Amino acid sequence: MRLFCDWGTSSFRLFLVNEQGDVVTHTASSQGVSRLPRAEQPAYLLAQAQQLVTSPADLDVLICGMAGSGLGLANAGYQACPADARQLARHLVPVTVPSLGRVQLVPGLSDEQTGADVMRGEETQLLGWLCMSELHQHGQHRVCLPGTHSKWVQVQEGVIRGFSTAFTGELYGLLVSQSTLKPATDSHSDEGFQLGLDASRSKQPLLNSLFTTRSKVLLYQMPAECAASYLSGLLIGTEVREFSAAGDGPVHIIANGRLSALYAKAMAFYQLECQVHQGDGLSVAGLGKIAELM
Amino acid sequence: MRLFCDWGTSSFRLFLVNEQGDVVTHTASSQGVSRLPRAEQPAYLLAQAQQLVTSPADLDVLICGMAGSGLGLANAGYQACPADARQLARHLVPVTVPSLGRVQLVPGLSDEQTGADVMRGEETQLLGWLCMSELHQHGQHRVCLPGTHSKWVQVQEGVIRGFSTAFTGELYGLLVSQSTLKPATDSHSDEGFQLGLDASRSKQPLLNSLFTTRSKVLLYQMPAECAASYLSGLLIGTEVREFSAAGDGPVHIIANGRLSALYAKAMAFYQLECQVHQGDGLSVAGLGKIAELM
Repeated sequence: MRLFCDWGTSSFRLFLVNEQGDVVTHTASSQGVSRLPRAEQPAYLLAQAQQLVTSPADLDVLICGMAGSGLGLANAGYQACPADARQLARHLVPVTVPSLGRVQLVPGLSDEQTGADVMRGEETQLLGWLCMSELHQHGQHRVCLPGTHSKWVQVQEGVIRGFSTAFTGELYGLLVSQSTLKPATDSHSDEGFQLGLDASRSKQPLLNSLFTTRSKVLLYQMPAECAASYLSGLLIGTEVREFSAAGDGPVHIIANGRLSALYAKAMAFYQLECQVHQGDGLSVAGLGKIAELM
Repeated sequence: MRLFCDWGTSSFRLFLVNEQGDVVTHTASSQGVSRLPRAEQPAYLLAQAQQLVTSPADLDVLICGMAGSGLGLANAGYQACPADARQLARHLVPVTVPSLGRVQLVPGLSDEQTGADVMRGEETQLLGWLCMSELHQHGQHRVCLPGTHSKWVQVQEGVIRGFSTAFTGELYGLLVSQSTLKPATDSHSDEGFQLGLDASRSKQPLLNSLFTTRSKVLLYQMPAECAASYLSGLLIGTEVREFSAAGDGPVHIIANGRLSALYAKAMAFYQLECQVHQGDGLSVAGLGKIAELM
């Protein structure tokens, strides 16, 4: 038995897994590393472990996500792409947590080939995705992980070749909650999303088309109720148009629920084939792969 | 004598001008229309007028800016481009303010030729700029009015042919104050601004290069103190690259102080000749032009 932990910015999940890598029991909370002072994190981890087993002192713990960032237990740094499960397993960073066994952090990934890009947490999900099917481990694939900071990843023969981050989710959140574009309502509108997708195709500068969210309403070209979904369609459409590198086969979307549906819709709009994979459970599978190679 | 008023989102300025259009006296406050309920605006205008003259009942008032928007005294609508001073003068919108003479609002401008764009207030500054020199009234010119929502305007033979808005200033404000890119310090760094200009040239998607503000710091490619100015250089550089339509002659920048210097720097970087004009006083000159044609 060992403990796997996926500790992100705004969520904490801890799993007790058996020798076969199956989850025996688990616990979760919203105590992400941004919500818990660094000094309190070791005690929090121990307390959560004690909820799952009576005496966790003998259990090893493997942790992925923002717990390995400057905000977390220790900075586990970044491994440069191209990288695979073996490389991540070789560069785990140990951290001492009293009354727990060996605790190790999975490093993030960096890509400096075309700029400066980083991920932390998604690399473990990607390893989990690679384990899902023999097909994923061979040939070349494009994977999209939508989110606050979406990741577009190139995978080849089981190796993460490189990736690029889109600031889409965070930008959308800022615009609908804090800006002069803030819509009267943020309920979803299919019509608004479609208008946003149409606008993303026009290739007007994004700095201009963002502003049109407001001017289209002022000029009676769009109902005010469409504005939030227009912004969503504009931003996701722009991301899909600009980030989907040429390639064969479908784009693999790793996401849950509504977000995956919006990305699938944007990909259909740009005539990109896609396959949606649920993100739940992928971190555990990825941690299992790393544990196997440790 | 008459009163000219430039009433924006966050500022109020009222001028008493003589028959020659010269300012005799003036007053200003931060009571923009976003800070004053609509119902209180007529009384506020009267009280400010009474500060300038003992009995303002006989004085006509001409007002430009957001006072003519849905937030202001009355909605003065938009006139479609191409448009000139005569057209704006013909479409003034009267509004009743007790104890003042004839009060009229200048409409905004719209451009639906390549999308949906609106301006309100800048059209009057542009008319003022046209009055500055005989040269401005002839030939073809590109004018840039940097600000929260920057305007890029094409002027030909004294007519405003069309324009495009960049969301740059507001986006910068949101990112440096509310986002995960929020820098530790927002003091200006020449090095950071230059790095941002360099990044704007790379033609990476903006949704990606915004994120690199953070990843460059995490990967030790840029000191954290450079981040705010990097964002500024990236956004202004992207705006200049994408909005400066081909054309002869300099780009005319209408702005005050520091902002005009940053735009001039970005234009030099993109080898665009530019001329900087102070924005102060242009609204009064523009209102004078409209009054002459009423």
